[in-house]
Amino acid sequence: MAPEAVADIGLIGLAVMGQNLILNMNDKGYTVCAYNRTTSKVDDFLNNEAKGTKVVGAHSVEEFVAKLKRPRKMIILVKAGPAVDAFIDTLTPHLEKGDIIIDGGNSHYPDSIRRCEALEKKGLLFVGSGVSGGEEGARHGPSLMPGGSDAAWPHIKEIFQKTAAQSDGEPCCDWVGQTGAGHYVKMVHNGIEYGDMQLISEAYDILRRGMRLSNDEIADIFETWNKGVLDSFLIEITYTVLRYKDTDGESMVDKILDSAGQKGTGKWTAINALDLGQPVTLIGEAVFARCLSSLKEERTRASKKINGPSIKPFEGNKQQFIADLEQALYASKIVSYAQGFMLMREAAKEYNWTLNNPSIALMWRGGCIIRSVFLKDITNAFRKNPELENLLFDDFFNKAIHDAQEGWRRVVAQAILWGVPTPAHSTALAFFDGYRTERLPANILQAQRDLFGAHTFKVLPGKENDHLKAGADIHINWTGRGGNVSASTYTA
Amino acid sequence: MAPEAVADIGLIGLAVMGQNLILNMNDKGYTVCAYNRTTSKVDDFLNNEAKGTKVVGAHSVEEFVAKLKRPRKMIILVKAGPAVDAFIDTLTPHLEKGDIIIDGGNSHYPDSIRRCEALEKKGLLFVGSGVSGGEEGARHGPSLMPGGSDAAWPHIKEIFQKTAAQSDGEPCCDWVGQTGAGHYVKMVHNGIEYGDMQLISEAYDILRRGMRLSNDEIADIFETWNKGVLDSFLIEITYTVLRYKDTDGESMVDKILDSAGQKGTGKWTAINALDLGQPVTLIGEAVFARCLSSLKEERTRASKKINGPSIKPFEGNKQQFIADLEQALYASKIVSYAQGFMLMREAAKEYNWTLNNPSIALMWRGGCIIRSVFLKDITNAFRKNPELENLLFDDFFNKAIHDAQEGWRRVVAQAILWGVPTPAHSTALAFFDGYRTERLPANILQAQRDLFGAHTFKVLPGKENDHLKAGADIHINWTGRGGNVSASTYTA
Repeated sequence: MAPEAVADIGLIGLAVMGQNLILNMNDKGYTVCAYNRTTSKVDDFLNNEAKGTKVVGAHSVEEFVAKLKRPRKMIILVKAGPAVDAFIDTLTPHLEKGDIIIDGGNSHYPDSIRRCEALEKKGLLFVGSGVSGGEEGARHGPSLMPGGSDAAWPHIKEIFQKTAAQSDGEPCCDWVGQTGAGHYVKMVHNGIEYGDMQLISEAYDILRRGMRLSNDEIADIFETWNKGVLDSFLIEITYTVLRYKDTDGESMVDKILDSAGQKGTGKWTAINALDLGQPVTLIGEAVFARCLSSLKEERTRASKKINGPSIKPFEGNKQQFIADLEQALYASKIVSYAQGFMLMREAAKEYNWTLNNPSIALMWRGGCIIRSVFLKDITNAFRKNPELENLLFDDFFNKAIHDAQEGWRRVVAQAILWGVPTPAHSTALAFFDGYRTERLPANILQAQRDLFGAHTFKVLPGKENDHLKAGADIHINWTGRGGNVSASTYTA
Repeated sequence: MAPEAVADIGLIGLAVMGQNLILNMNDKGYTVCAYNRTTSKVDDFLNNEAKGTKVVGAHSVEEFVAKLKRPRKMIILVKAGPAVDAFIDTLTPHLEKGDIIIDGGNSHYPDSIRRCEALEKKGLLFVGSGVSGGEEGARHGPSLMPGGSDAAWPHIKEIFQKTAAQSDGEPCCDWVGQTGAGHYVKMVHNGIEYGDMQLISEAYDILRRGMRLSNDEIADIFETWNKGVLDSFLIEITYTVLRYKDTDGESMVDKILDSAGQKGTGKWTAINALDLGQPVTLIGEAVFARCLSSLKEERTRASKKINGPSIKPFEGNKQQFIADLEQALYASKIVSYAQGFMLMREAAKEYNWTLNNPSIALMWRGGCIIRSVFLKDITNAFRKNPELENLLFDDFFNKAIHDAQEGWRRVVAQAILWGVPTPAHSTALAFFDGYRTERLPANILQAQRDLFGAHTFKVLPGKENDHLKAGADIHINWTGRGGNVSASTYTA
C-alpha cells in the first residue's frame, strides 16, 4: 500500500544547498521529504545531518510523491539545465491538477518561462525560485525570490517566508512576478553581486598597490567601513578572508590564484542588458574583469613586456584618501544598483511582468550574498515612491552621490595615474557623468553614420526648420557626392 | 527559349548598396545581371543609374538564373534574416552542382554557418561575405570579407579582388576562412567601428565641453590629426560633418539629436565576447554608450536633478593637452584593435576556422569604414609575425603605447575631474593596466566565493604546500562554521 502523505513539502537533490534548505525548513516546523537520484545519499543524509529531525526520505519518485500532502509542493534543487527538465518529466506523470513544482536551482529565466507555460498547460503549477545565501543562507535563512504561476503563491507563501531570512522582522521573500520573473531577479541579483565583488577587489588593489598597505591594515579599513554606509556581508567576508593566515602564518589570500571564472549568471545579466538596450555597464565590466583575470599566463607574459608608471610612496593625506575611497565604493555601488533596477524595469515591460521594486529590494536586504544596510535604504526609496524612475532621483541617494562625488573623482583619477586598474569604478563614474548629461556627443556619431551609410538622423528638439522636421528621418548629402537614397541593407 | 547566359555574376537586391556594387563590378569589366523582387526597380535601375552600362536585368528568378554563366555566381544583398533564407530557397531549385550563392548582407555569422552547411549538403557552394564601405565604398571599392565554402574562392577571387578597394596596390579582399568566418570578421569590424566612433565622440566632447572649443576649431584639430597616426576615414568625416553648416549658418551637428541606435553588429560582437570569455571591453562600452544616448528624455530629466563639477576655463597648456588627447585616442584605439584580434583568435579556436590575421588587417586597410594608415601598421605587425599573441607585444605598437601612456592618463584623469564621460577611453586604459598586471585582485574574489559558496580556488604557482596542492580545487572553512562540501547546485 502507498505510504502516508506526511510531508508538507519535498526536496529533490541532496547536495549541500539541498541538505541545508531541508534542515532549515525542518527547524521552522515543517516535515520535509528528501529524495536524491542516487538514493544512497538519502540514507547518508537521514543517518547523519538529518539524524533526530522530522525529515523523511524517499527511495523512488513514486514514494516521494506519495509522501507529499496535497496540493503537492516539491522543490527541485539540481544542476540547472537538462537535469531539471528530466526531473520535471519524471515527476509529472505522478502528479495531480494543482500540484506545484518548484525549481530552486540557478536556472536561466527563459527556461523558467518555458517550463511555467508547459506545466500550466498540464494543469500543474510552476514556481521558479531564486535562492541566494550560499550554504550558510540555505541553512539559517536564505533570500528566496519565487515567481511563476500566481496561483501557487498562497500555497507556498507561509513555508517560504518562514524559511527565508528575516530582516527587521520582515521576511526576505515575497512573490516576484509571473513565469520566469523569480529566476530573472535572481540573475540580476547575481550580476549585481559580480559588480559588488569587483568593486571591493579594486578597492583592495588600490590599498595594496597604491597605498602599499598590508592585508591586516586593509582588513582593518574594511572592518571600519563595515560600520558605515558600506555595512554588508561582502565587506564583512572581505576582512575575514584578508585576516585568514595559512599554517605558516602567511596570508591565505596571497596564496590564491588570481583567476576567476565567469560563465554564469553575471554573463547572462550582461547579455540581457545588451539585448534590452540598457546601459548596465558596471556588471558588464565586472564580467569582463573576470575574463581578463582568467588570462593569467598571457597577463604574466604581458607584465614582462609592458610597463606602467612606477608607484611612489603615498605623500598625500592617507585618512582623507581612504575616506575618499569609501565614498568611491559607495557611489559606484549606488550606480550599479541604479543600473540593475533600470534593467529590471525594462525586463518587466519586455516580458509582461509586474515587478514589485520595494519587495525586490527587501528580498535582497537579508539572507543573500549582497545583503546590506544599503538595501534597506533602497527599500525605503521604493516604498516612498514605487514608481521611482531612477534610484539617483531619490532624495536620499541623490544627496549621497552628490556628497560622494568629489572623493570618487579623486580616487579614480589617482588610480589612473598610479596605473592601478579600476574598470568598475571608472565605468560607474562614466555612467554617472553620461546619465546626468542632457546632450551627449552621439550627435557626431549620428552625423558620421548618415554620411557613410545614409542612416538618417532626427533633429534636436528646438532646432526644427522647414528642412529639419520634427520626428522625420533626415538624410543629408554631406559631401556633395553619393546618392540620397537611405541605406536599407547596410547597417553599420 | 531560355535567354543566353551572358552575365559573369548576378546580384539580387537593388537598394543603394546593391546598385552601387553592380555599377562598381560593371566598371571593372564584368557583365552583371540585376534582379529585384519588385521588378519595377530593375527597369528603373536599367533606365537610370545603369543606363549605358553592360548591366543586364532579369524580371524573374528563372530569367536571372538563365542569364548567369556557369558555375553561376549570385550575390544576395537584401535585409539580413528570413529574406536571405527565402531567396536561397527560391534560387536552389534552379541551380546546379557547384553553383555559388553569395550572401553579401549583414547576416549574423551563425546563420552563415548554418546556410553554408545546408547548401554544401545539396552540392552547392556558399559564400558569406562581409561588405563594408557604405554607399561610397560599394560604388568605388569596398572592403570585401568573403568566407564559406573553400571551393568557391577560386571562382570568385578575381572579380572580388578587382571590385574591392585597392590599398598600396593590394586588394582589400582575401579569403577569410570557412563557413561563417567572413560574416564573423565583418561583425568584429563593425564592433571595432562602434569603438572608433565612440572614441572620436568622446574626444569631441572633451574639446567641446572641457576645452570649450567651437566646431570649427575642433574640425581643425581633427584635420591636423588626420595627417598623423590617426589618419583615417572616420577622422576625415568627423571634420567634414563638424564643418557642415545649415542654411542659417549654424553647425548642422548642433541640430542633430544625440541619440544613437545600437541593435546591430556591435551588440552581437559584445555578446559574442561575453560568450567566448574575452575582455573586449571597449566595444562593450561603445554599445552601452549608444544605449545611454538613446535614453534622451530620461537623461534630460536627470540633468535637472544631478549636478557635476563646474568646468572652469582651461588654464593649462592647450597645445600640450591636445597632443595628449591625440595620444589618448591613439592608445585607446590600439587597445580596441588588440581586443578585437584577441576575440578573433578565440573564435577561430571555437569555430574551427583558420583565420589569416595579416589578410584581415589588410582587408580593413582600405574601402571600409575603419580604413586607416593604422591598419597598415597592424598588417605589418602580423606579416612580421603571423603568430603574434597580442598586438601590444609587437615592437611598433609596444613602443607606440608606451610613448602615448602618460598623455593618455592625463587626459582621462582630467576628463574625470571635469565630469566629461569617457567610458571608452577609460575602459581602454583600465584594460591596459589590467592586462599588464601579473597579479590582479581576483584572489580576493576567489576567496569570497569559496567562503560563501564553497566554490574552491587554486593555489598561486610558487605557493604550493602539503595542503595547497598545485592544480587542486581547494576549499577552506574560512569561518569555522558551515560544511566542507563544495557547492554543486549553487553558483554565484
